[in-house]
Amino acid sequence: MSTITDSAPTPSRSATAVILAAGRGTRMRSERPKVMHPLAGQPMLRYLLENAQQVFDRIVIVIGPGMDDVAAIAAPHAVVVQSDRLGTAHAALQAQAQFGTGDVAVLYGDNPLITAETMRELLACRRQPGVGLALLAMRPADPGRYGRVVTQGENVQRIVEWADATPQERRIDLCNAGVLCADAGDFRRWLNAVSNDNAQGEYYLGDVVTQAVSEGACVRAVVAAEDELRGINSRAELAVAEACVQTRLRHAAMDRGVTLIAPETVFLCADTDLAPDVVVHPHVVFGPGVKVERDVEIQSFSHLAQCIVRMGAQIGPYARLRPGSDVGARAHVGNFVELKATTLGEGAKANHLTYLGNARVGARTNIGAGTITCNYDGVFKHVTVIGEGCFIGSDTILVAPVTLGTGAMTAAGSVITGDVADNAMAFGRARQENRDGYAEEFRNRLKDAKERG
Amino acid sequence: MSTITDSAPTPSRSATAVILAAGRGTRMRSERPKVMHPLAGQPMLRYLLENAQQVFDRIVIVIGPGMDDVAAIAAPHAVVVQSDRLGTAHAALQAQAQFGTGDVAVLYGDNPLITAETMRELLACRRQPGVGLALLAMRPADPGRYGRVVTQGENVQRIVEWADATPQERRIDLCNAGVLCADAGDFRRWLNAVSNDNAQGEYYLGDVVTQAVSEGACVRAVVAAEDELRGINSRAELAVAEACVQTRLRHAAMDRGVTLIAPETVFLCADTDLAPDVVVHPHVVFGPGVKVERDVEIQSFSHLAQCIVRMGAQIGPYARLRPGSDVGARAHVGNFVELKATTLGEGAKANHLTYLGNARVGARTNIGAGTITCNYDGVFKHVTVIGEGCFIGSDTILVAPVTLGTGAMTAAGSVITGDVADNAMAFGRARQENRDGYAEEFRNRLKDAKERG
Amino acid sequence: MSTITDSAPTPSRSATAVILAAGRGTRMRSERPKVMHPLAGQPMLRYLLENAQQVFDRIVIVIGPGMDDVAAIAAPHAVVVQSDRLGTAHAALQAQAQFGTGDVAVLYGDNPLITAETMRELLACRRQPGVGLALLAMRPADPGRYGRVVTQGENVQRIVEWADATPQERRIDLCNAGVLCADAGDFRRWLNAVSNDNAQGEYYLGDVVTQAVSEGACVRAVVAAEDELRGINSRAELAVAEACVQTRLRHAAMDRGVTLIAPETVFLCADTDLAPDVVVHPHVVFGPGVKVERDVEIQSFSHLAQCIVRMGAQIGPYARLRPGSDVGARAHVGNFVELKATTLGEGAKANHLTYLGNARVGARTNIGAGTITCNYDGVFKHVTVIGEGCFIGSDTILVAPVTLGTGAMTAAGSVITGDVADNAMAFGRARQENRDGYAEEFRNRLKDAKERG
Repeated sequence: MSTITDSAPTPSRSATAVILAAGRGTRMRSERPKVMHPLAGQPMLRYLLENAQQVFDRIVIVIGPGMDDVAAIAAPHAVVVQSDRLGTAHAALQAQAQFGTGDVAVLYGDNPLITAETMRELLACRRQPGVGLALLAMRPADPGRYGRVVTQGENVQRIVEWADATPQERRIDLCNAGVLCADAGDFRRWLNAVSNDNAQGEYYLGDVVTQAVSEGACVRAVVAAEDELRGINSRAELAVAEACVQTRLRHAAMDRGVTLIAPETVFLCADTDLAPDVVVHPHVVFGPGVKVERDVEIQSFSHLAQCIVRMGAQIGPYARLRPGSDVGARAHVGNFVELKATTLGEGAKANHLTYLGNARVGARTNIGAGTITCNYDGVFKHVTVIGEGCFIGSDTILVAPVTLGTGAMTAAGSVITGDVADNAMAFGRARQENRDGYAEEFRNRLKDAKERG
Repeated sequence: MSTITDSAPTPSRSATAVILAAGRGTRMRSERPKVMHPLAGQPMLRYLLENAQQVFDRIVIVIGPGMDDVAAIAAPHAVVVQSDRLGTAHAALQAQAQFGTGDVAVLYGDNPLITAETMRELLACRRQPGVGLALLAMRPADPGRYGRVVTQGENVQRIVEWADATPQERRIDLCNAGVLCADAGDFRRWLNAVSNDNAQGEYYLGDVVTQAVSEGACVRAVVAAEDELRGINSRAELAVAEACVQTRLRHAAMDRGVTLIAPETVFLCADTDLAPDVVVHPHVVFGPGVKVERDVEIQSFSHLAQCIVRMGAQIGPYARLRPGSDVGARAHVGNFVELKATTLGEGAKANHLTYLGNARVGARTNIGAGTITCNYDGVFKHVTVIGEGCFIGSDTILVAPVTLGTGAMTAAGSVITGDVADNAMAFGRARQENRDGYAEEFRNRLKDAKERG
Repeated sequence: MSTITDSAPTPSRSATAVILAAGRGTRMRSERPKVMHPLAGQPMLRYLLENAQQVFDRIVIVIGPGMDDVAAIAAPHAVVVQSDRLGTAHAALQAQAQFGTGDVAVLYGDNPLITAETMRELLACRRQPGVGLALLAMRPADPGRYGRVVTQGENVQRIVEWADATPQERRIDLCNAGVLCADAGDFRRWLNAVSNDNAQGEYYLGDVVTQAVSEGACVRAVVAAEDELRGINSRAELAVAEACVQTRLRHAAMDRGVTLIAPETVFLCADTDLAPDVVVHPHVVFGPGVKVERDVEIQSFSHLAQCIVRMGAQIGPYARLRPGSDVGARAHVGNFVELKATTLGEGAKANHLTYLGNARVGARTNIGAGTITCNYDGVFKHVTVIGEGCFIGSDTILVAPVTLGTGAMTAAGSVITGDVADNAMAFGRARQENRDGYAEEFRNRLKDAKERG
């Protein structure tokens, strides 16, 4: 009776993931395509791509018109454009030319937390002898208005929308997550059979289950954790998903031997690389591309991105490490200090109110409080090179390009516009002059002015 | 038998809210009147006033002696002083001259989270035909030692204090919130009938329910959410109420299309106005009076109050916008930068370690790292005006009053005490001089001194 | 039949606590001994010591080889070294020479949240007539794989490990916390009878219960809160324990009359001393040794350690108070300001981008924005003394040692290398010079260079 493909597991059988990413996400109230909203510093779509790549041979992303930024993120995977928004089944059909001959799974770009493990289980379920369609389901703490999965024994009989469910069906706790997997030929046939004969006039992917059952296909559900299957339709749901991702990242860091004194106040990126015995104090934010070696202590209110911090360094509080910073072993970066494209040598110190941009600082050099590199002339960025064992006096201004030799010093408050030789000291400040009684005079004049109003 | 007023809903009937705010709040251990403690940046009393104003025609606040600050917040509403603290019924009686002839509700200043919607329901309940007294009740997650509301069908029979309740009564989950509403004449009569024949020797408002029932009045309960009915008697309860208010504000912002990456770390004020597609990173604090336009990104550890940030501007991390700041479209305010009473033109940048006070900065002007306006002479504040397209060199000191023309520049490290013409460059720094070998000498002298101890 | 000591409560009977602290804690993935990991700023072992000192006459800590840092923290208490790791019973036996003749309790260094109250109850339970062995138990929200305590009436019959428990036993919700208390002689005998005939080949302290029961001793359980009995075996469990400690500290502060606007974002140390009516805004971190007097307001993103803040002072946002700071009554420390070993007189102000190290600032003195003390010459720290009522111009550099008299002033941007007399004004800056059209020339040259590439 059935034309359904009953394929045994074969490694040679191809697997294709179709990711629906055309939604504008009106409930996000955003100009930005929904799947471009970031989680832990990268667009949500990227999570799905990274996991799908581990499981599927081919990935096709269905986008809406004008979503060039989504296509860019999707590269090098194939992209097809859904010109008219006629529903999820219609969206999946746009990719039918790419279905190939193996198995096809349809995933959602706004459902980005599904793990590779779960994708593998879905595919394996579909490939069990006799199974025609596999779907993902969950048992949420609050099933609310999710569609319910009606089963008999192991087999799914149908999906019933909450609005259409009987009181008895509403008591079912197994809910539909909407993700489906079937043989390419079956999937194509079922999708084409879906009608838009409903209140919204849309073609719904969920009707594929009805088609499959009506053909007598065996439908099975793979149950995954609720956290993996959260959809993101609003900013509030985006924040909940962010919290899920952060919890995963924090626990992974702690399992590797990192101390997060207050994990709930530390924000990580997907690629944050913290070594064992790194201690992170409360209220620290990691942007992308950060690597921190053993025994580094990162104090509160620090902010790091695209940088490396080497063994035993001390960071913060209030340290800002911007892209291209390289903090040497046992070096110190203190409060209200910003580093950008700057290398700090082993044991060097920049502890207070300092901006170092496009600078190379030698080992053991001490950068005084208030030091500032003038690395930008309005058009070009210039380099400051400071040798080993230097002592930069407080409030020194280093006008780049400029080079200070090994062991050089600068007097506090100097403007350094020219190079300084090894072991030389540079002065560039005015001499002090005191005027007796002048402060009192000045105050009296102000007082008079105030009285006059 | 009954003298109870059975009024049908009439728009012409007046409604008066009496707010009890005389409590000192001993469990707060504070010198400050309890209702003056702030939630989301404004005194808790203000929330109740704002909501009550939407529902009631007249508001009377009962304060304690010497609570001038409460009276100031209460203005322009009527204030009466309770000289002796003889209990809540006694407090309500102080306002009886203001009851008028319509309905009267008694609310509590330390119970500030009741919504206007709930107040409206209370009033509507009272105005149902046959209802003499309406009260607010709740079903808290943990009913604990709240007084229980004993009902028969829809009617409240009595309030039983936890201490006096039978084990069976303690199993009742409907708890008394203490808020009452009745016809003015009834309320006055019942209040005057309350006795102080109890352990504390106080006149309790709760006894009004007993009076009403004893007269055969129909008493009804309106059930509201626990979060609305939380009383604030300690700093811990104040913190819980603050968390409730913050949760409301954060969800309202996200519903409007604002991304709060980690909502639990962002603190808003009641009047914070964030446009759609504003992105707020973790750990940001908004004081009162902030307006942020579309597509602004506010990075971590920023602090804003009484300011406007225009479309597409970039704020932070570690940006401090103080009252009177106006950040232009696509302008940048970077790390460790403070703005006060300062306008930053379109596309202008102040990215590092800068203080701008009482300044006007033109469009596209770049403020170098470490720039400081000397706007204060100890008595007066003076203005700094910087034109469009200027380039302020790093560590420039601008001694106000001072004006820089369009396209002007300053050399890094300059002290600018006089005006600078259009397209002119100002220098105000010493020339550099190097002394060869002097750094080494200096170190040797220090080393010797150290060895000598 | 029994040799078990049945001692009535006698004040003269000694009480000894043996603390097992030899564990390396492999699941921590740390080079540091487990009990040295800090909670709220001090090693976890210290909490146990502080509480045990209140209850026991003698404390003995069992450490592993090479754990000198643990021995240092343990001082002046006795320390014994367990050379071979043969199990917890073996560890306790290393201390048997110190058991004395009274009661002995065995506690765990990685179980540091047990209160003195609970320790007292344990000891009191053991000292009840007829009781031979007392143990601590709990009823955790999730009993999971804890060993279960099998009781008959009040008496403990045995401890059953989860792996060995019948389904019926697994339903028991009373779980073993592992902490034991018995007469010294009994304990010694039972410990010596424990065998290592098990899968791991280790001597387990839990087997002491079996020994006691087999001798017919009466064994009783004292039930304590789960939070007190959390073991710390991983960084994630360390974070959970930190959260418990922080919650205790925050509630204690609020009970004393401190406002913590968002308690979950404020991090305290065990010794943080905040007076009533102190207000702490969100996102504040207290290191050890901080005392804050009445009516101080500490704004967001502030970081304090080893300092005192006197009545009515205003701190932050972004204020960093380092060890040795003493902020006078009604003084102000503003944004991006760091104080170290510095006294700020009554009503003095340092409001913007300032570093004051080893300084004494007189009452009512105003420190301009960007002021920096050069207190370090690479070897020595020098002192800056500023009198009362001074006005330090913005961006002043104070090269220590240096003294400014009462009412002295400095011009903005000055480098101050020598003393300034009372009411004198010091200048130390270059005069401004403007070059007309030079900015335009400069820009044109840059433009040309850019075009040339």
